This record gives sequence, structure tokens and C-alpha cells, in this order.
Amino acid sequence: MESRVKPSILPGFMELLPEEERIFQDMQQKIRNVYESFGCLPMDTPIIEKSEVLLAKSQGETSKQIYRFTKEDKDMTLRYDLTVPFARYVAMHSENLAFPFRRYQIGKVYRGERNQKGRYREFYQCDVDIVGKETLDISNDAMVLYMVSEAFKAIGLENYYFALSNRKLIKGLLAFWKVETQEEVILGIMDKFYKLKLETFKEMLEEVVEEKIAKELIQLLTMVKDTKEVLRCLESYQGENELFDEGLKEIQEVIEILKVLEVPVKNYQLDLSIIRGLDYYTGTVFETFLQGAENYGSICSGGRYDQLSSCFTKENYPGVGISIGLTRLFSVLKEIGFIQQYPLKPVGEYMILSLGNTNRYALKVYQKLSALGYRVGLNLEESKLKKKMSYANKLQVPRVIIVGEDEMKREEVLVKDMFSGEQKSYRIEELNKIQV
Amino acid sequence: MESRVKPSILPGFMELLPEEERIFQDMQQKIRNVYESFGCLPMDTPIIEKSEVLLAKSQGETSKQIYRFTKEDKDMTLRYDLTVPFARYVAMHSENLAFPFRRYQIGKVYRGERNQKGRYREFYQCDVDIVGKETLDISNDAMVLYMVSEAFKAIGLENYYFALSNRKLIKGLLAFWKVETQEEVILGIMDKFYKLKLETFKEMLEEVVEEKIAKELIQLLTMVKDTKEVLRCLESYQGENELFDEGLKEIQEVIEILKVLEVPVKNYQLDLSIIRGLDYYTGTVFETFLQGAENYGSICSGGRYDQLSSCFTKENYPGVGISIGLTRLFSVLKEIGFIQQYPLKPVGEYMILSLGNTNRYALKVYQKLSALGYRVGLNLEESKLKKKMSYANKLQVPRVIIVGEDEMKREEVLVKDMFSGEQKSYRIEELNKIQV
Repeated sequence: MESRVKPSILPGFMELLPEEERIFQDMQQKIRNVYESFGCLPMDTPIIEKSEVLLAKSQGETSKQIYRFTKEDKDMTLRYDLTVPFARYVAMHSENLAFPFRRYQIGKVYRGERNQKGRYREFYQCDVDIVGKETLDISNDAMVLYMVSEAFKAIGLENYYFALSNRKLIKGLLAFWKVETQEEVILGIMDKFYKLKLETFKEMLEEVVEEKIAKELIQLLTMVKDTKEVLRCLESYQGENELFDEGLKEIQEVIEILKVLEVPVKNYQLDLSIIRGLDYYTGTVFETFLQGAENYGSICSGGRYDQLSSCFTKENYPGVGISIGLTRLFSVLKEIGFIQQYPLKPVGEYMILSLGNTNRYALKVYQKLSALGYRVGLNLEESKLKKKMSYANKLQVPRVIIVGEDEMKREEVLVKDMFSGEQKSYRIEELNKIQV
Repeated sequence: MESRVKPSILPGFMELLPEEERIFQDMQQKIRNVYESFGCLPMDTPIIEKSEVLLAKSQGETSKQIYRFTKEDKDMTLRYDLTVPFARYVAMHSENLAFPFRRYQIGKVYRGERNQKGRYREFYQCDVDIVGKETLDISNDAMVLYMVSEAFKAIGLENYYFALSNRKLIKGLLAFWKVETQEEVILGIMDKFYKLKLETFKEMLEEVVEEKIAKELIQLLTMVKDTKEVLRCLESYQGENELFDEGLKEIQEVIEILKVLEVPVKNYQLDLSIIRGLDYYTGTVFETFLQGAENYGSICSGGRYDQLSSCFTKENYPGVGISIGLTRLFSVLKEIGFIQQYPLKPVGEYMILSLGNTNRYALKVYQKLSALGYRVGLNLEESKLKKKMSYANKLQVPRVIIVGEDEMKREEVLVKDMFSGEQKSYRIEELNKIQV
């Protein structure tokens, strides 16, 4: 006898039972359909790439979390996002692409995250990016948000909000306040705004900037629920710093376009605490939170990057992208009970159950129903009708087709509704008359 | 200035340009739809698993080809097929599954293959398996072939054939001939039947078995084009060996059911040279070849395994599965010109091109068309109409919607057919009247 291994998977990996997997794939399919409906082209890149390529732009933070190994003397890494491979793809294939290049990509990425709620080491990202050659209009920043809002609508998600900012705003403000040398520290503190108590946050800020500046910053951060008010407050700094003015103009335009695109006002807010860790963002940045489930972290993030491909080519490809973290989103939606109520059509319209020595006949029926376009399940195993009915029940099939020896002799089938219990016989030539 | 890295990918990995990727994904989607139409449930497993799990059953051959590495003291491996993870999944989750469990899985797998035509180190497999508890009817062996034949039909593939065998046939024959001690060597030679010249093949066989046996074997192998004849020839050995008789009964039933399911006779043949390297197969085995492109190897293989989960559990889960090697299939179809003629609908029904300062208005039009359910592309970049028309042309959009300042003032749009050149204006409230 061979020795046995305990069947298990590595910690930090998500694996679903069929019922939940059906929902996961349905969500994925709906996101795909929405991205395609906006004329985005599909893309796929290898999960394994040369380390020098994937790490060309990254700093310490990323490299600690990666899956990196050597095979046949080649240093390789599993992709940790879909953005760096996209930058490489654009630089590598630019001659064969039409710009602006609108692409979407749905795939798994890998990070050696600490094992905790909502964090996975393997997770799906559903990215959509628009990349231009030399220039890319600011309307695209609003466009990617719109696409995701439509994707969320398709999966029935309403209680979320995009938290928007523009890096130029905070960078410009810090320069205007003449504390730009403290930028890194200040941004680090701002990033923790929702994690810290207001008092602690204030104390930390005042360790690096004057009380007056800390006060102004806190004021900006605490009025996020009212986008108009934040904008008005920001406008009061206009004309003091060029970078800030640029950022203000951009965020104003993004918000205007969100209105034109009829993205509901409750689904976005202007929040200067949104910094985004990755250093390739240069303008608009966004994260996304589920109303009341903010502590799980952002379920969809992105922003504008004007220099992303610069480590691969001297050509300039400014872009903007957004990424739904589908695995995390799914796990949060499960926590809040959304998945349990997700509407899904049954596995099939029918299931054929054979009784006695009728398998060939049952398969003939199966073939005919399939050819008519029905989704049909099957159970031809040698077992009692009761067991087969319970199988159909488990798979939640609405109607079964019972094929016993009598039916076979008469060239008939018996159709039974699993809910009402009603049943009716049909001749095999009349299968097209079965009601669905 | 940062230093630049040459954008490239590792050898042996396939990466497609958008146009081909659209075809690849369309094929994937069609296969998925067919599998689902037969009541198969979707499944997904991690790409990284514990080495002890993935390698629980494998021998030398597999372990040379795997991607295996250590992270945080954990020994892990990238899956090299979808069958072993499936066996682990069944053993791990059996209490939550309904048997027979019909599942499909589409995903990437990894093998350190030598870099050669049609062989990739990362490739997609599209698997469908049916697993029973304790028993599984032989009709399922035909069923998985039927599902794939329907999937091939959906992607427009007709010129292929399943090469079928049953391991019990050849094992039984060798036992009957009393050369079972040479089984490994003989199967190794038979596996090369199509690669060797007949004369060489004969010489090699005669080194291990008597001339008479070699002759009988060669006779069986050379009549494959006529399934009836092979069956008749096999029947002449009936009653001599129990295992053989079992295999004969199984293969007869599989072929009978393929007829019932109306799988065209030209799409399968009985071929005793089909051995399959993997040692978990116990009965029916199959490979699949494209007519006239046999030298690329099998594009879809599988078979019956009665003991697959045995290294994970003492319960018995007999199964049968089949796997389309989609990446290889795609590369062969490209070689033979099939991909170049693959019918695909355009990226979108419309593309909106803005001229002058009209972006917000163009986006309003975009939002309205999207809401009407159209697939719509967009180009709002600052450039001349000619450049934008050429962009629409590259993406092969059938109709463009031109939005200039005059159109905006009149609250109109100009719709132009890219083929006929015809154009017509519509008011923005009348977008629903645009003809597709």
C-alpha cells in the first residue's frame, strides 16, 4: 500500500467549493463583459517573468513580498501585480498596438503577505488600463472609474465608494507650506488617518509640521463626506503653487466627468489621505471601500502613472489604470452576507436519471436535449431512484427526466418538476415540446 | 535617469497580441460554455501547492520537469497538471461534494519542458472530469469525449480524431502472450510507433518478443483507420485473458455510446499504440490529433483512473477525465492557418471620436450608448480626425460616431459607416434609433 499524504493547501490561498466558485466565476464573467463592452481588449501575460523585468522599478517594500526563485540559472519571479507586466508588454509590443491602448486583464498575482483576514498570497486582479503615446487625456482617469462602477453595478454591488485624490494636490500643498522635505514622513502619517485616533494622528503630525498646518490638513481630511466642500476648501489655496493648481484642475475635471457619466454621487468622495504606496503613481489616485466594511481595506485601487514604461523604453506612455482585487472583494462580500444572497441560475435546466438497464437510451435522450440547446446534467450510476433524486436536489436542478425500462420500451421520458412534484410523459420525438 | 531593462519574457512562454488574444479567449469561453451546458461545475485550485501533495503520486519523469522552490522553509511546487490538484480537492472536500462530481477547470500549468515547437513551459489546460464514489459507470468515459467533441464543434474544429485505447487490452494481451515481464519495454516501444520507421519498429519489438507476437501486434497497430476491423481482430483474442476481456467489453461500450451520442465516426479510432505516460490511468486512455498535424503531438488527452485519490484518502473515487491543451492547440492552429480565418465579432459596434473641445459632450454620448447596451470604443485624445479614423480602422470598428463642436452645439452626433462611407446625423435623444 502506498503511503498517504494529508490533502491540504498552503496557508493564505483561497479555494472555493463549487457553489461559491460558480458565484466567483459569475462575478469574473460580468466584470469581463463590462470591460469588453467599453471596447477594452483582452490581455494575458506569463505568471512567471524574469526578476530583472518585474523588479525593474520596485523598491524594498515590494521585493520583500515576492515569490522569487532560480531555475536552470535563471532568476525568475511570480508577478505580484498586473501593472508592471503591462508596462513591459506595452514597451515590448508598442509597434503592434493602437494607442490609446485600452486593455483589460483578469489573472492571478502572488504576494508573500502575512496571513490575515482579507489578505491572500494568491489573488485575482481584474485590471483595466488606458495607455496613450506621449499624451493621455484626463477624461480617461474618470473613464476607468466609470468602467468599474458599471462592473460593480453588473454584479449588484451598490454600497461602495471610490476615495479619490491627486498626488499633485498634497505634494503642492506641502511645497506651499515649505515642508516638502518632510514629504515622506507626512504622507506616511496621512496614510494612517483612518487607522489612528484623531488625537494620536494630530500629535504625530505636529511632530513634523507646525500646529497651524496640521490643523489645515486635518480640516481637509475630516470633510471628505462632502466633495463640494473639499473642492471649495482646496480652491482657497489656488494660485499659490503650480503643481497644486495642476492637480486641482485635474481632480475638478475628473469629478465633472463622473457627473456627466452619471456615476452616483454617493459612490465617490475626495479624500486627500489616499496616498497609494506604489511609487509609480503621478496624478489621480484612488482606492475603493465597501460602505461599513472599510476595515478590510481597499477592494479596488489604481491611478495615473505618467512614467510607467520608462524603465523599459525611452518612449513615453502615460497611462491610468484600476484594479479590482476580486479575491479580497469576494472574501469581504462573504463576511457581510452578500455572497449568500447572490442570485445565480441553476446548474442546468434538466437532469437525466436512468433506472435499470437504460443507459444507452438515456444517453440518446441526453444527446437530443443537448442538441436542442438545453443545459443538462446526468446521473447514470447504478443506484436507487431515491439516491439519484437526492443528487439532483443537492445540485438544485429544477426538473429531472426519469428514464426507466418502461419509458425506454415506450420510447418516452418522464419529466418531473422538483418543486411542484408534477410530472408528465413525453415521446422522444417530442422533446422539443418540453416546457422550461 | 534610471537605467533601462530590455523588455522581454522567458523562453517557452506564450504571449499574444490583442487580436490573437481575443481569439484565444473566445475559444476558452466557448469551451467553458460547452462544459457548463453539460452540467459541469467550475473549479479553481491554487497554482502553488505543497510539494508533498503535488508529488505524492509522481515518479521521476514528472519531478524533473517541475517548478519547485522553497519560501519561508516551505517546499512548494507550481502545478504541472490540473488532475493531481483535482484528486487532492476531491479527497479534501468530499463531504461537501455530490457524486458523481462533474467538474471542469481551465487554468495554467507549468512544466520545465525543453523549448521546442508546440511545447510551452506555461500552458492552459481545459479539463473536464467525472468522479464517482466507489463506482463510476463506463458511459462516463464516452461522455468526456462527447463533451470535448462538442467543444471542438463550438470553436469550429472538425478535422481531428480521438485515438482511443484501453490499457487492459494491451496488458491482457501481453499476459496472454506470456511476455508481461517485458511490459514496460514493450509499451515504451509501442509508444514510438508513429515516430519510428516500420522496419525499425519491428526490429526493436523482435528484440523483446517472438516474431509471431511482433507480427500480431503490428497488424493491430496498422489497421487503426478501420475501428470495426480493429474490434473484430481484438474479438479473436476473447476468452483467453480476463483483464483483456474486461478491456474489450469497456472499449466496445465506449464506442457504442459514441455512436449513440452521434460523435462522427471520422472523429475517433481505436489505436493500441496509445499508452499515455502517466501511471495513474487504469482503463480507457485517449489522445487527440489534428488531421495532418499529428507531428505536433496530442492536443487533448486523458483517460480513466480508478485510484487517483488513493494517495490522499482511503476512500475510493474512480474517475475519468480529459484535458484540452489549449496553448498547444492554439499554436498548432496558428501553424495550419486556422487562427487566421477564425471568425470574430468586432471589438465594438461603435467608436466615438471627439474633435475640438467636446470631450464632456462626447462622454455624455458614450454614457447614453453604453446604457443602451452597445459596445462602444472611444478616442478623446487631442489629435486630427485622420489619425483618429486610422485608429478606428486598426481596431476594425464598423461604425464611428464623430462628435465635433458643430455637433455639440446642435446636440447631434454624426454616424459614419466605415465600409460604405455613408454618414447620417442623429439628435442625442434619438441615439436609440441608430441602426446597428
